[in-house]
Amino acid sequence: METERSHIRIVVDAMGGDYAPHNVVAGAIEALRETHNRFEILFVGAEQILQNELQRAKVNGLSYRIIDAAQVIDMNDPATAALKQKKDSSISVGMTLHKENKADAFVSAGHSGAVLSTSTLILGRIEGIGRPTIGAFFPTEQGICLLLDAGANVDCKPHHLYEFALMGSIYTQEMFHIENPTVGLLNIGEESSKGNEAAKDTYKLLERGKVNFIGNIEGRDILKGKAHVVVCDGFVGNILLKFAESVPSFLKVRTKHYVSKNLPRKLIGLLMQKTMRSVLKSMDYEEYGGVPVLGVNGVSIIGHGKSTPKAIKNMILKAEEMVRKNINQHIQEALVGTR
Amino acid sequence: METERSHIRIVVDAMGGDYAPHNVVAGAIEALRETHNRFEILFVGAEQILQNELQRAKVNGLSYRIIDAAQVIDMNDPATAALKQKKDSSISVGMTLHKENKADAFVSAGHSGAVLSTSTLILGRIEGIGRPTIGAFFPTEQGICLLLDAGANVDCKPHHLYEFALMGSIYTQEMFHIENPTVGLLNIGEESSKGNEAAKDTYKLLERGKVNFIGNIEGRDILKGKAHVVVCDGFVGNILLKFAESVPSFLKVRTKHYVSKNLPRKLIGLLMQKTMRSVLKSMDYEEYGGVPVLGVNGVSIIGHGKSTPKAIKNMILKAEEMVRKNINQHIQEALVGTR
Repeated sequence: METERSHIRIVVDAMGGDYAPHNVVAGAIEALRETHNRFEILFVGAEQILQNELQRAKVNGLSYRIIDAAQVIDMNDPATAALKQKKDSSISVGMTLHKENKADAFVSAGHSGAVLSTSTLILGRIEGIGRPTIGAFFPTEQGICLLLDAGANVDCKPHHLYEFALMGSIYTQEMFHIENPTVGLLNIGEESSKGNEAAKDTYKLLERGKVNFIGNIEGRDILKGKAHVVVCDGFVGNILLKFAESVPSFLKVRTKHYVSKNLPRKLIGLLMQKTMRSVLKSMDYEEYGGVPVLGVNGVSIIGHGKSTPKAIKNMILKAEEMVRKNINQHIQEALVGTR
Repeated sequence: METERSHIRIVVDAMGGDYAPHNVVAGAIEALRETHNRFEILFVGAEQILQNELQRAKVNGLSYRIIDAAQVIDMNDPATAALKQKKDSSISVGMTLHKENKADAFVSAGHSGAVLSTSTLILGRIEGIGRPTIGAFFPTEQGICLLLDAGANVDCKPHHLYEFALMGSIYTQEMFHIENPTVGLLNIGEESSKGNEAAKDTYKLLERGKVNFIGNIEGRDILKGKAHVVVCDGFVGNILLKFAESVPSFLKVRTKHYVSKNLPRKLIGLLMQKTMRSVLKSMDYEEYGGVPVLGVNGVSIIGHGKSTPKAIKNMILKAEEMVRKNINQHIQEALVGTR
């Protein structure tokens, strides 16, 4: 069920990310070109810098505006800076535009903590959601899965985990076109009696809930693709995500060590490099172009600090899709009668 | 500080593991041959089957005995079976020999849960240890690290995690010859204020404890080799271990998919296979020949169900080394004045 929206406006935090504003502007321009101005982009950031950046690109006829914001949240700022010391930052100004309905979505490759906290506090939570969540996409032998929570919430209560399952199911169904996505509870054994207290109680909630719950899944089941949506506390999820992200670098170091032992191996090593790169790319977070903050009154997408123009473009296209598909309305409807 | 022990006796659960008794006997025989009977092996299991198995191997002059045990704990048995329904199982009989000082160590590639519970309940805990632990070895860019707990204990209290750190430090120092091994607390950020309540409290304990605490480490730091000993709750540790163990299979599937796209890639794929196998071997649990149960009054080593003869041999040699090095005495000494 898509809503006809003639004029979607997407706020782009032009100052966010390690290669801002260059990569951000390049990706956004590409998104506008590719879609023939299907939406409007509101670049938020230092006006003069952005004008110069846009002048270098050929942007005639593209539908964008620049909204000035004097401050930038940098990686050393606390997550609360956008709400306190730097209210004129691109993140605060951009999120406020969205809050005031002057835009329909917000994307940023900047400070994740700041984007999460402004999303939650400026946009507000969807009624019935205790804690908004950020997920992570994991590649699997079957395709892809969404793990929630990836670090936004530690010490979760069972009903929070249930909310993650519900939101993850709706997101996966609508955005990945997976009919009735499976939900697995990350645990240390298959039986319902396994795990810590929170896991056991969550099992009971999920069992009688409005999701396609397939029971507990173990660490080994994630990459096998046993569930479309993997639910866990943000403490476990964050450790797992960062571990997974470190695997490619570990393999590179190990392979280098192995292939440098003699010449024939060196030859194989050279041949391997390109192949390995392609295989490992699928384990790389930024390929999916950002993750949504689920559970807030709006569409807010967080990208990797090292986002390429392509990743930025994908984030913008995902934001547009989330708006068109009314993801939040689906979440609201699913929450009715749940609690 | 090694004690001279002229006659170390090691119980080997001859019925434990997917390829028992063949792999177990083969590995044990190899250990005796390689060390010129430096210790004695007590094979525990079905006498007739073991006699036949040993007859096939050439075992003249090797120092072993067979101890009959009529029952076998199979993988479908509950962890408590060895203590209740199957008291005549190879695990119960073998562990009791160790308890009664008729043997100095116990090794098994059988039911991990049963070995853990009999180790704890038959041998008993070291005084001052709240919960015995099983760790897991992770390969790192620098070498190897020991992660504790890998699934034996969920819902750990801070003082349990401190005990894991202490025991892991002693094990790593003595067995891996690492002077003053570093201890990292697995968490979701570096600052002491990060993480869940248990992590924050554990940080304080570790900071003033008798270990070389380097602070919080994140998921990405494990394979980088940032700490020799990684401390976490068994819920997190088990999920992480099983995830890591699934990476090789995932990469194989992905590589196969990638290299089958056309012929030149197929060629590279063939060349890659052998190299990949060697690289990934280092991520394989059984290479280290089992993990010790730390914190019990004895030496008990648990091996992978699929242990090869080489893995069994290594388990036995590690058990002998743990006895000679008086690991438990070191733990007891370290505990004095700690609490």
